[in-house]
Amino acid sequence: MKLVDIYRHLRPDIVKLEREIEAQVQADHPVLRAASTHLLKAGGKRIRPVFVLLSAQYGTYDLEEIKKVAVPLELIHMASLVHDDVIDNAEVRRGKKTIKSQWDNRVAMYTGDYIFAKATEIAAFSSYPQVHPVLSYAMEEMCIGEIEQIRDQFRTEQTLKQYLKRIRRKTALLISVSCELGALVSGASPSVQYALKWYGYYVGMAFQITDDILDFVGSEKELGKPAGSDLIQGNITYPALYAMEKNPEFRKNINRYMHNPSEESLEVEEAIEIIRKSGAVNAAKSLADKYVAKAVRMLDIIPEEEQHASLKKIAVYIGSRKF
Amino acid sequence: MKLVDIYRHLRPDIVKLEREIEAQVQADHPVLRAASTHLLKAGGKRIRPVFVLLSAQYGTYDLEEIKKVAVPLELIHMASLVHDDVIDNAEVRRGKKTIKSQWDNRVAMYTGDYIFAKATEIAAFSSYPQVHPVLSYAMEEMCIGEIEQIRDQFRTEQTLKQYLKRIRRKTALLISVSCELGALVSGASPSVQYALKWYGYYVGMAFQITDDILDFVGSEKELGKPAGSDLIQGNITYPALYAMEKNPEFRKNINRYMHNPSEESLEVEEAIEIIRKSGAVNAAKSLADKYVAKAVRMLDIIPEEEQHASLKKIAVYIGSRKF
Repeated sequence: MKLVDIYRHLRPDIVKLEREIEAQVQADHPVLRAASTHLLKAGGKRIRPVFVLLSAQYGTYDLEEIKKVAVPLELIHMASLVHDDVIDNAEVRRGKKTIKSQWDNRVAMYTGDYIFAKATEIAAFSSYPQVHPVLSYAMEEMCIGEIEQIRDQFRTEQTLKQYLKRIRRKTALLISVSCELGALVSGASPSVQYALKWYGYYVGMAFQITDDILDFVGSEKELGKPAGSDLIQGNITYPALYAMEKNPEFRKNINRYMHNPSEESLEVEEAIEIIRKSGAVNAAKSLADKYVAKAVRMLDIIPEEEQHASLKKIAVYIGSRKF
Repeated sequence: MKLVDIYRHLRPDIVKLEREIEAQVQADHPVLRAASTHLLKAGGKRIRPVFVLLSAQYGTYDLEEIKKVAVPLELIHMASLVHDDVIDNAEVRRGKKTIKSQWDNRVAMYTGDYIFAKATEIAAFSSYPQVHPVLSYAMEEMCIGEIEQIRDQFRTEQTLKQYLKRIRRKTALLISVSCELGALVSGASPSVQYALKWYGYYVGMAFQITDDILDFVGSEKELGKPAGSDLIQGNITYPALYAMEKNPEFRKNINRYMHNPSEESLEVEEAIEIIRKSGAVNAAKSLADKYVAKAVRMLDIIPEEEQHASLKKIAVYIGSRKF
């Protein structure tokens, strides 16, 4: 089962949303257009718009109102990816930045800013005044999440709790908001909005934990980047935390690398092997499964409807996806 | 005459706005709080809130409504300064970035994003639905202006027209919007809104041209950075364009530096001397004066009121300020 199979019936509307996103970033400026087009071509799962559409089915489905939240949500996500790239580039070429790469980074920063502004502009036209504060708040929390990730980077003394707090802001919140606003703009009842908001939050947690597992078990081809990239870049995720807990020798090695990443090298293959053997993958999977179960339980609050099937399937899929 | 003397009567309200700005960036996160506080301490002229307050006097002055545009406007300006710093740091330490400086840059980027989000959140609570799209549009244009500045950086083949287009987006637009929205949220008539919008635009142009003059005639102490910084960083402003036009030898030197700024050095003292002697300062001053005159003329559309005096004085001040 692939994700697209689950929401095949939404395909026509997803295409419409994609066209709208495309139209919005086709700015009246060549450099910006080039940067944005590059981003669009990169594609993505568009899971935030999908969650908006699925949640909107719990009320009066109105694509025009849906657009005014689904498009901003995807744009906010895209802008955050652009800003992540500013960072990633800087990392990869550590201390060896060319003027060319600097130019790219700066354009990337302002392209991200531009896309953020576009997102807020579209949301401002929603008929639901609650939409905008919710979106702004999500953006703020995302920024704090990113800053926490920077603070925690290369820091080996961190807890599972800190990790969970970070991914909550970084990922879960925007998916939660997608579900909540989808329900809101279709006039679903407050209890449905509440249930879907929490459904989205739990699915979002499972999504990020799975992502963090895949960084260690996926192939370079599946991931689009080398396995173990998170660790190399100093982002210590749950599987690494778990393995460090179980294996003091491994903790020592990771400590050494994290304290002096520019000098020390990391035996990535070996580290991945240790993490895999530590039972970390199963532990992380079981944590993700717990969140999936919580997500599914939130649906029980809502009077049985046929869209439950899709939301349940997606929750389960997200907890078990291979890439 | 100092700027503060012109709007002394607004001082109590400016203090209230400053407190509100402070409260808004005192985020519930230590790193973010540290970054924001640093920014607040840097101060600034707060000219955007001042223009909002002055313009609001043309209608029913309501500080609560004014706050919801003046605070976002200043926050947007602050966020853009934070993002400018990301760039400036990268420049100064060209190719020699330490992990520490990288940490700072990344935090700066997300701090800027956070402040942007805060700005949009506050604006979302305005009673005037037009506020938000106007602000978002201004943010978008600012981003395009920044990207244009990057594109035009180190580019000696550029025209006065390109320079003006750039500063329009980079500076004039946000001041124009400050005036326009100040009038709007105080219920001033559409013709007053129109006049103040254009007043702000012209004042903004004069403001940036004066800023660009000061970069060549100010002392390091007045500017807070070495004179000629714009030129060193490859930002070619009107005085430099003018001098290059008048002095082919100078153009050749600048060309050489701009084409290979990491290898070539720039005799900054000498370049400043040449620019000063070329008549560029007077030419730029006269251009700024033209914009000041246009700004003042816009006020004629508005039935004579006592606040004209302040707006006229500010326009004249901005065209002739020494730092």
